Amino acid sequence: MATLAPQQDPESDPRVRAVFDDMRATRKSDYINVFWRTLAFDPNLLERTWGEVKQVMAVPSSIDPLTKEMVYIAVSVANACSFCIHSHTAAAKAKGMTDQQYAELLSIIAVAAKTNHLATSLGVPVDPAFNATP
Amino acid sequence: MATLAPQQDPESDPRVRAVFDDMRATRKSDYINVFWRTLAFDPNLLERTWGEVKQVMAVPSSIDPLTKEMVYIAVSVANACSFCIHSHTAAAKAKGMTDQQYAELLSIIAVAAKTNHLATSLGVPVDPAFNATP
Amino acid sequence: MATLAPQQDPESDPRVRAVFDDMRATRKSDYINVFWRTLAFDPNLLERTWGEVKQVMAVPSSIDPLTKEMVYIAVSVANACSFCIHSHTAAAKAKGMTDQQYAELLSIIAVAAKTNHLATSLGVPVDPAFNATP
Amino acid sequence: MATLAPQQDPESDPRVRAVFDDMRATRKSDYINVFWRTLAFDPNLLERTWGEVKQVMAVPSSIDPLTKEMVYIAVSVANACSFCIHSHTAAAKAKGMTDQQYAELLSIIAVAAKTNHLATSLGVPVDPAFNATP
Amino acid sequence: MATLAPQQDPESDPRVRAVFDDMRATRKSDYINVFWRTLAFDPNLLERTWGEVKQVMAVPSSIDPLTKEMVYIAVSVANACSFCIHSHTAAAKAKGMTDQQYAELLSIIAVAAKTNHLATSLGVPVDPAFNATP
Amino acid sequence: MATLAPQQDPESDPRVRAVFDDMRATRKSDYINVFWRTLAFDPNLLERTWGEVKQVMAVPSSIDPLTKEMVYIAVSVANACSFCIHSHTAAAKAKGMTDQQYAELLSIIAVAAKTNHLATSLGVPVDPAFNATP
Repeated sequence: MATLAPQQDPESDPRVRAVFDDMRATRKSDYINVFWRTLAFDPNLLERTWGEVKQVMAVPSSIDPLTKEMVYIAVSVANACSFCIHSHTAAAKAKGMTDQQYAELLSIIAVAAKTNHLATSLGVPVDPAFNATP
Repeated sequence: MATLAPQQDPESDPRVRAVFDDMRATRKSDYINVFWRTLAFDPNLLERTWGEVKQVMAVPSSIDPLTKEMVYIAVSVANACSFCIHSHTAAAKAKGMTDQQYAELLSIIAVAAKTNHLATSLGVPVDPAFNATP
Repeated sequence: MATLAPQQDPESDPRVRAVFDDMRATRKSDYINVFWRTLAFDPNLLERTWGEVKQVMAVPSSIDPLTKEMVYIAVSVANACSFCIHSHTAAAKAKGMTDQQYAELLSIIAVAAKTNHLATSLGVPVDPAFNATP
Repeated sequence: MATLAPQQDPESDPRVRAVFDDMRATRKSDYINVFWRTLAFDPNLLERTWGEVKQVMAVPSSIDPLTKEMVYIAVSVANACSFCIHSHTAAAKAKGMTDQQYAELLSIIAVAAKTNHLATSLGVPVDPAFNATP
Repeated sequence: MATLAPQQDPESDPRVRAVFDDMRATRKSDYINVFWRTLAFDPNLLERTWGEVKQVMAVPSSIDPLTKEMVYIAVSVANACSFCIHSHTAAAKAKGMTDQQYAELLSIIAVAAKTNHLATSLGVPVDPAFNATP
Repeated sequence: MATLAPQQDPESDPRVRAVFDDMRATRKSDYINVFWRTLAFDPNLLERTWGEVKQVMAVPSSIDPLTKEMVYIAVSVANACSFCIHSHTAAAKAKGMTDQQYAELLSIIAVAAKTNHLATSLGVPVDPAFNATP
């Protein structure tokens, strides 16, 4: 199912072609997944979305690549985005995530979800000890 | 506001006292925040919750302590738990998170939220390339 | 804070007056909380919302009143609606919820949140054993 | 789809075997669903998760078993966990939930979701009448 | 999958028949989708739900029909309701939504999700400039 | 509360100054709200976030400005972002949203939330009639 069919020949549009070529070079893989092939219906949206994903996830920075994927997975789980969970779990494995790390990632996500619901249930105000404002 | 008042003298209950003592020793801080002082109304719930938080977050494991906090923050943001976001952002800073890392963490959370909503909008099926089942 | 000020004299509108009177009679309390006083800016929305809340929550049915409040709290926690959590926790207590029941309610909400996040992380398909369709 | 294949022969691990045996005895059913067979990739996570689910959901307590399932369903719906919704709706039916009760459960979940979104839209502060703190 | 099988012959119940007839007349289409056929297990719930959907979405009002569908899609995406996203995206297209408008709708949903997560991460209090209460 | 104090003199950084000047010109208002003053701790994040918000929300396009704000509010409500709800409700009013339109917007958000939860509860599969893929 989808609200939009993936484009049949998306790379006939040179802007789409350029994005897909950059994606292949950045990810060192020829495969363009169905999310990007669908998003290609609007080259503006495709360019901006890929541009941001590349800048945040692929450019070396002060957070290592595997940690980035773990954070991405965590957000995607809480937002219940099945596609994103699968694609970034695959990416995390490709970046070296072991089964033990995966089990620990799941444990952190689970305990965070649990305490999120407990703290929200109790309605406790943010403790002044955690306030960064003067 | 809260649905329950924090306990006045929670440590008069020896089970609560034992949990709070373990918390102080584990965290090397005398401070017990309002979440735990409120949860102390039920020693069973307090013991089990702290036991799990300690095991997952405080015991050395294959994921480093700062990464754990980042994942915790990510889940808490997507679940909109203000208390948890504040307490674990403070914990991440205490574990050495720099302003640059914090800005990058926010960027990852933001781009994940964005692509979560895009993929969910489009309803694209999980790409078979990401499927781990036979 | 609010996006709209509560109405100053909402009962000068006879339709609002009628809703508030019905609310007082149904709940056996003179107090009209700030949610309803704010919603009174639009009598249509007020009438329809109260009509549904009354029908579902106040009319005797096959689910007992305290269970109804517990389910309401559970949804409100997962949707992070602080106002609703507080008002329905107060309602549950007024309907006899003990501290022990409250602790158990929190435990169920917590374990459900945890397994929700685990199952969503793993992306396991719905087991055919749970399918009601032919 | 799944991020992890269910274990082929999970019970060759004696810790997994012990959990599954306890699950069969507790639930009086030989069937182990795909969530647990997948989670079995990490015996620690499996033991802790089952231990908590059993303690909260299967041990007799001050909340009756059917109410527990209804609360669980409510949380799972708001968190959009399809697997959990299906498994716990099946469990609720097995514990005697009638079609009329199910329709009423859906009505409560629906009206809670509605007022959650209305109260969050309006941003009304928690009414002091509902505050439990001094 | 579903927690309930769609009714085999739902229109044998005259109340269901009346709702379906009204739906066909309102939507100028003979097709009754699987959501309504399943909800028909409880004529009360069916009548009330359709009554509200019709009143809000189909009666001419101060918000035009296409805008209504866009708002509906936006809520459904953030709540991760795949069925609703698909049905209301189809409805929006039927009401004239162009590919360009759809791309822009996706852009708004995406940037809102992004800033939602950023503002929630930072925990910034609501700016008094936006407060409508005195 | 906040996880970060708003910058004391953010415009001493010329990149922040440039963003704030552009914001003032675009919005025809001198006021820079606390979200942007806090986000200014990282000029990269500030520039990218404002750039996207401006492009999507302020550049004339195929969706009118008030509709854009309504969609933004809808997402923010479902994501429970209090700051965003308040700021964009104020923006919608500034762009001419009447009280009647606001009441109708709330009605659409409410009925969408309701049917989202119903469809998710029932687990009905997406009806093939709504599928855009071949």
